[in-house]
Amino acid sequence: MKIFETRTAPNPRRVRMFMAEKGLLEEAEFVEVDLQKGENLTPEFAARNPMKKVPVMELDDGTCIAETMAICRYFEEAYPGTPTLLGDTPVEKALIEQWLRWLDFYFFMPTGMCFQHTTGYFKDRMTPFPEWGEECGKGVQKFMHFLDKHLDGREYLCLDRFTAADINAYVTLGFARVVQIRIEPEQKNLQAWYDRINQRASATA
Amino acid sequence: MKIFETRTAPNPRRVRMFMAEKGLLEEAEFVEVDLQKGENLTPEFAARNPMKKVPVMELDDGTCIAETMAICRYFEEAYPGTPTLLGDTPVEKALIEQWLRWLDFYFFMPTGMCFQHTTGYFKDRMTPFPEWGEECGKGVQKFMHFLDKHLDGREYLCLDRFTAADINAYVTLGFARVVQIRIEPEQKNLQAWYDRINQRASATA
Repeated sequence: MKIFETRTAPNPRRVRMFMAEKGLLEEAEFVEVDLQKGENLTPEFAARNPMKKVPVMELDDGTCIAETMAICRYFEEAYPGTPTLLGDTPVEKALIEQWLRWLDFYFFMPTGMCFQHTTGYFKDRMTPFPEWGEECGKGVQKFMHFLDKHLDGREYLCLDRFTAADINAYVTLGFARVVQIRIEPEQKNLQAWYDRINQRASATA
Repeated sequence: MKIFETRTAPNPRRVRMFMAEKGLLEEAEFVEVDLQKGENLTPEFAARNPMKKVPVMELDDGTCIAETMAICRYFEEAYPGTPTLLGDTPVEKALIEQWLRWLDFYFFMPTGMCFQHTTGYFKDRMTPFPEWGEECGKGVQKFMHFLDKHLDGREYLCLDRFTAADINAYVTLGFARVVQIRIEPEQKNLQAWYDRINQRASATA
């Protein structure tokens, strides 16, 4: 299979870290797409993903699967016997899904909107609203405060083990640096958790 | 179990329709929460869902699960033998997840932001940016155009059968009416699909 991605972008990094935790990085050929040059806007790319976003996976039979968590779910389901990252029981699966949604809606997406609307990085293809971008940045900081409180006495974000929730939060924290949002000195729980995840071999995938 | 919800809000409706398709509506006691009065902002509610959103499910052992798709996933996993709405094989599960993400990111969320930012419905608890809301509305219309083209020759959004993707798109179309976005007369595929889903018993759940 092939994964069309942009090495430096956060969503592809979520997929690579997920695959690395399962020992599946060798399963795919990674194909680099230059977003700033607009290589994702070609008709050829849109045929693989009409939303024109990376990453998108192409299976050997030509089936294309877009969206980070859809690609992760494929690996979770298609490779039984690898470490599960999306839960084992119905309650575990639901709680991890809850966290994945929280992290997307209150952390990853506002970070992305802060980036797009305050930096104008994609202003050739969207209208930036800087004030909205700044508001999103405030939301990100508020959510990081919530994460710090939640992590008091906890080793991982959800359940008592490493899950996809940790991957998504960890990658988003790295992403937030591009809009100058970093862990505050007083957010000691969040920092300790970050350092813990940062030591995993998958963190450099 | 209990589900704390707001009868008229779109996310709870997605959960009820999902449960109805599986014949599980009788499994939960539904508890009404008045959003405009701020009943979701109380410490008691925040203990169930720190994001202060409906719906949230409380299992009999006190475990709380927030987020629409997390609740739906619980029902999918905990009740084998009911009709599957999130797919059977790894590829099916991934393709449905792709669609659920597309529908959330490009349809449901921009509809919600258009509503919140152009109507000021929640202006006691957030800062509306009307121009951003209008931009989101344009995104919703663009996505509906994509849906209409995609549905040419197709009976359902994803795979060749009814799935959670159809539920989420159907409920979002209803939600979009509050910001005066409706199916255009020339969007005949989208209209035919809507009429088909609208005939299901679950549509009034």
